[in-house]
This record gives sequence, structure tokens and C-alpha cells, in this order.
Amino acid sequence: MDVTQVLRMNGGDGDYSYSNNSHLQRKVISMTKPIIDDALANLYYTMNFPKTLIMADLGCSSGPNTLLVTSELVKSIDKIRLKLAKDESLEIQMYLNDLPHNDFNTIFNSVSKFQKNLTNQMVCNNTSSSPCYVSGVPGSFYTRLFLRESIHFVYSSYSLMWLSQVPEMINTNKGNIYMSTTSPPSVIKAYQEQFQMDFKTFLKCRAEEMVSGGRMVLTILGRQSDDPCSKECCYVWDLLAASLNEMVSEGLIEEEKMDSFNIPQYTPNPKEVSNEVEKEGSFMIDCLEVSEVNWDASTDDNVSISEDDVQGYNMGKCMRAVAEPLVLSHFGESIIEEVFERYTNNIKVSMSKEKTKLVNVTASMTRKG
Amino acid sequence: MDVTQVLRMNGGDGDYSYSNNSHLQRKVISMTKPIIDDALANLYYTMNFPKTLIMADLGCSSGPNTLLVTSELVKSIDKIRLKLAKDESLEIQMYLNDLPHNDFNTIFNSVSKFQKNLTNQMVCNNTSSSPCYVSGVPGSFYTRLFLRESIHFVYSSYSLMWLSQVPEMINTNKGNIYMSTTSPPSVIKAYQEQFQMDFKTFLKCRAEEMVSGGRMVLTILGRQSDDPCSKECCYVWDLLAASLNEMVSEGLIEEEKMDSFNIPQYTPNPKEVSNEVEKEGSFMIDCLEVSEVNWDASTDDNVSISEDDVQGYNMGKCMRAVAEPLVLSHFGESIIEEVFERYTNNIKVSMSKEKTKLVNVTASMTRKG
Repeated sequence: MDVTQVLRMNGGDGDYSYSNNSHLQRKVISMTKPIIDDALANLYYTMNFPKTLIMADLGCSSGPNTLLVTSELVKSIDKIRLKLAKDESLEIQMYLNDLPHNDFNTIFNSVSKFQKNLTNQMVCNNTSSSPCYVSGVPGSFYTRLFLRESIHFVYSSYSLMWLSQVPEMINTNKGNIYMSTTSPPSVIKAYQEQFQMDFKTFLKCRAEEMVSGGRMVLTILGRQSDDPCSKECCYVWDLLAASLNEMVSEGLIEEEKMDSFNIPQYTPNPKEVSNEVEKEGSFMIDCLEVSEVNWDASTDDNVSISEDDVQGYNMGKCMRAVAEPLVLSHFGESIIEEVFERYTNNIKVSMSKEKTKLVNVTASMTRKG
Repeated sequence: MDVTQVLRMNGGDGDYSYSNNSHLQRKVISMTKPIIDDALANLYYTMNFPKTLIMADLGCSSGPNTLLVTSELVKSIDKIRLKLAKDESLEIQMYLNDLPHNDFNTIFNSVSKFQKNLTNQMVCNNTSSSPCYVSGVPGSFYTRLFLRESIHFVYSSYSLMWLSQVPEMINTNKGNIYMSTTSPPSVIKAYQEQFQMDFKTFLKCRAEEMVSGGRMVLTILGRQSDDPCSKECCYVWDLLAASLNEMVSEGLIEEEKMDSFNIPQYTPNPKEVSNEVEKEGSFMIDCLEVSEVNWDASTDDNVSISEDDVQGYNMGKCMRAVAEPLVLSHFGESIIEEVFERYTNNIKVSMSKEKTKLVNVTASMTRKG
């Protein structure tokens, strides 16, 4: 599987599109806002009220969240500017990056409306908005994307858990599609090493591209436990594996096909993130936080049982928006509906029994001088 | 007609796509190469062998020409670098700009192959290629697109004859779709003033975005004559008007529909270009050249009569790739095939009688200090 060719969120704006099933990711963005505000305030102040600011959103995807992030970043920096240096003008360059198969055309068709909205919001508040120039950058963030020492601020949310490739395994991960309690130790090790290698490459590339004193805020789908096979991160893939295994036992999917399918993802704990940052050496961690979000981001802690069906369906659609291109490219189109029907059902049953949460690791760091 | 919404070259890679019918534009790019080489050499030298170079192609379209331009620019600057400063490394940022409806997805899917090809070519020549980072910028070049004082080199070919809007006319341009010998003087004036206003806006925006000493090379479809209705620039649209008028007389198109259709284009002569540059005041013209290209770029001056049919067909397809979205948005889909069949035939007949050429005005200029 060539991950750069296959990995993408479901396109368009249909029922299973990422565009219509990314509330969870949206909630995570809003949860990390205080950390972003803080990083931007520090950046703006230490840069001594710059005239231009160059920012990048890595793994921007395509949908309402893409320009939401840009909008939040611009509003945040404008608030700081108006507080600290009212008379200074500022221009912002926003780079939106994702893999080349991401639907950039859809984003680009919304840019001029987004820019108008930004100006209107500011006019309503009786303040002047910083002009924001938007540009799309196709490519893997595990390679260089920008000119050396050109970027002031890097943001990435729910992207860095995706690996550059499925780890190379010496043993078959039989019956599994991800790390699991029944995976051979060599499989777990392969996943861990792939994450370490990829994250190191990511840090090296960004270190070359960022100015000294530049800031980076990364939110990664992760875990709290030391155990990489803990339920908090692996359960969601276990349920997909269960659906696929059912279909293998019914002869609907070939066993060899199942054996050779593995998800190119790794959900690190905070220690693993900070270890890699320290080992690579170019960045200083300012803040490292763990947060949790319900599988169904639209529900809160007081959710009543009767809503479980809706939740299961929503989480099923969310996971389909994320995983369908991977499953499709490996197993073909004929089994897609069946797989995701079973998967959604498994999620529904599981959610009726217990409350399950996703764990986010957010790291805010500064490029050393 | 909202030009930013309607104007684009035919997408995809079909028989009438711009992608497969842009040989003429390709030939023009290669004809202006010496001027580009000269501008880049001067830029690199006066910038004192910079470590990074930021370039923009405005009106990049989508198809083989898009990354061809980028490739030519990178190869040109690398040749200069290897001659003048062999040991200096260089990184290049290339911004590809066009209106938001341009097919950026198709370009982005070719970027990684383009980057590999560039490296391979250089390896064959036993030299090292400068890494080139590609980024897409959606928007009209009659607005600001980039951060202030951020761009070193601007290139644009066959784009600036497109106006930001159809000129507002006080008299109807009856029977015509462009400036013509039978157009009222007020129509000619409206076209001229729209060009002057648009080109001035373009220069003002670029002046803000470019660094002092930055270079700009513009090739505009133009004319040599002082007369804005001269055959060299208007004839190609007269032939489309003739097709539409035929269909009006046959009752296939409503007369009012024809009366309200005008092409948002103006083909300036060199004097008009230099006048606007001087009036705006931010740029100094280094070189202003006029060149000619046969309607059928694949033929040379020794073309035999028997090839006229092919030529007419090619030029018809080329004009269809360029004009179809405009005609379609105004007249609807039902008459499209008929219009372009007649238009191609008109072109064929005309080309069998006389040799017709397009005129290009190329201006190379420097951003004043």
C-alpha cells in the first residue's frame, strides 16, 4: 500500500463524506484553542510585532474544518495584535497542506467567501482584520514542503498519527489490522519503530523550514497508557477487524487478503512524543497535554441510553469517512457496504455497553535558536 | 457575467480540453525563453546569489504547460547558478496562481512526478538541482495574492489579455462579441478603459508584493497596430460572431442573447502596455518585444495548402478549449456543438484563403527600489 496514494478522508459532501462527518475533529480543534492562543501570543511578542506572519496547517483535509482552523488562527492573532500593538498592521500567509489526492479544488472554491467573512466579522467588531493569503501545498509532511527558515507557526490536528507507510513486519499480524493484544511482539515493535522514524523525519523537516523561535502546536490522536495495545487506542480498529474476520469466516473475504491488511496509524502516549522531540533536539516543549473526547463528540457526559443508536451511527459514519479509502483500495468496492454496515453495528453494540473515549496528545513547542 | 466564476480553460483531458489543445501557448512560452533567461540571470546576480528564490506563475492554467513553465524557470535559474556560483545552494518556491475554478487537483497530482523528473534530469547532467517547492494560489491576479514584499520573480503568459469583467457599455455592441470595425466608438472606449484600469490594478498589486529589484516577465496576446479593431487581434472573434449571427438568423439563438454577449478580453499593443507601466510608476521596462505565431503553432512558414484542413481543425479545437466555458455559461449547453462546428468551419475556410498570425507582446520589467 502506497500511503501517499491511498490515504485520504472521504471526499465530496455526501452522507459518508469527511466534510459531513468531522464534528469530532472540530471539537478537538476547539478544545486546543487555549494552547494555540498562548503559542501565538508568545510568537507575536517575541517576534516584536512582525509585519508578516507565515503559518501552515499540515494535514488540513477538505471540508468545513479546513478553513475553520485558518479562521481561528487569524482571529486569534488579530486579537493579540489589537491588544498588544493596535496600530501595527499585519499580513498573514496561510499554507494549507495535505497529500496530493486531498480535494484542494473544493477548498479553493471557498477561499474568497472565507476571506469576505473574515473581513465582515472584523467590521462587526469595529476592528480591522489582517489580510490572509491562502495557498495550497500538496505533499507528505514526512518530506520537506517549504523553503528553509520560512515558517513562523505550524499547526497540525489529527494527522500525525497517520504513518508514512504500513510498518514492515517479519511476522503476520494474523486476525488483526492494527496492534492488538493478540499481535506478535514483532508487530508491536514494527509499529513503534515506524512511528519513531516518521515523527523524527517530521521534526527534522519542520526544523529546517521554521525560523528560530517559531512555534508549533500538534494534536495527535494518542493514548495515556504505556501499553500500545491498550483499549483506548486499539478498540476502534478491533471492531473493524471483527467485522472483517466475520466476513472471512463467511467466505466473503479471502483470509490472505485479511492477513495482509494493516492500518498505517500509531497513537503515541505523551512520553513517546516528548522522547522523540528531545532526541531530535531542534524543539523545546512548552506544554504537553492530554485530553479526552467522547466517541460521539455531539454528546456530553450526561448522555442518556436512548441516544446510543444515534451515537453508534455517527461514530460509524465518522470512522467510515476516515477509513473507507484504505479499506476500498485493499479489498475492492464489492464488499465496502457490507463491511461498514457490520462495523457500524459493532460500534453501536459496543457503545450501548460502555462509554468510550478518544485520547488526544497536544504538544506545543518552540524551534530552538 | 462574473468573469472570476466563468472564465477558465476547458478542463479534463478530452478532445477539446485545454490540456490537449495548448500547443500554441506552449510555443509562445518557448519563444520568450531568452527574455526569461536574461531576467533571471540579472535577478540572481543583483540579489547577490540568494539562498532562496520565490517565483509566481500567474494564470498558470491546468495541463502540460503548467509544470512546463515551472520546470523551465527552475532549469534556467539552475544553469545561471551553476555558471555564476557553483557552490551556492538554492531553494525555490514556486507559486502557481489561477482563478479558483481552475483544476488545481490535476496539477497537484503531477507535482511529485515533476519534482522527481527535475532531479533525474539534473543527475543525468551530473549537476545538482535546486529543490523546488510548489504551492497553488487560487484567486484573481487583479487582487492581492501574496504577502507584501515577498516575491522575487513574476511570470505570466497568455493571461493578462483576459479582463476582470466585460466592460460596461452604454451602447449595444450589436452583431459583435468583441471590438469590431462595426462596433460603436463607445464600445471600443469601454474596452480600452477596462484594460487600462485592470492593468493598472495588476501592476499596483504586484508592486506591493514584489521585492525591490524583483523581475517580472509578461507575455500578453496583443497586436501591433494602433487600431484596436485591427484584423490581427479581432478576426478570431469575428469568426465566432459570424457563427453566432448565422444561428441568430436561423432562429437558433435569440437576438437579445447575442446582443448581451461580449468577450472579456483586450489585446493591447506594445505602446499601451508601456504607457500603463510608466503611468503606474513602480516598474522600469527592461525590454519590450513583439513576436508572431501562426494560428496553427504546429506548422511553420512552409506549410502546404493540403494541410489547411488539419490546421483549421486544430485552431478550432484550441479556440474551443479557451472559449467554451464563456459561450456555455451565456448560451447554455444545447447550442454548444453547433456553435463550435460552425466556428471551426469558419476558421478552416479562412485559413485556406490566407495565413493568419497571433501577435504577442512581451514585457520584461524590474520593480524599482
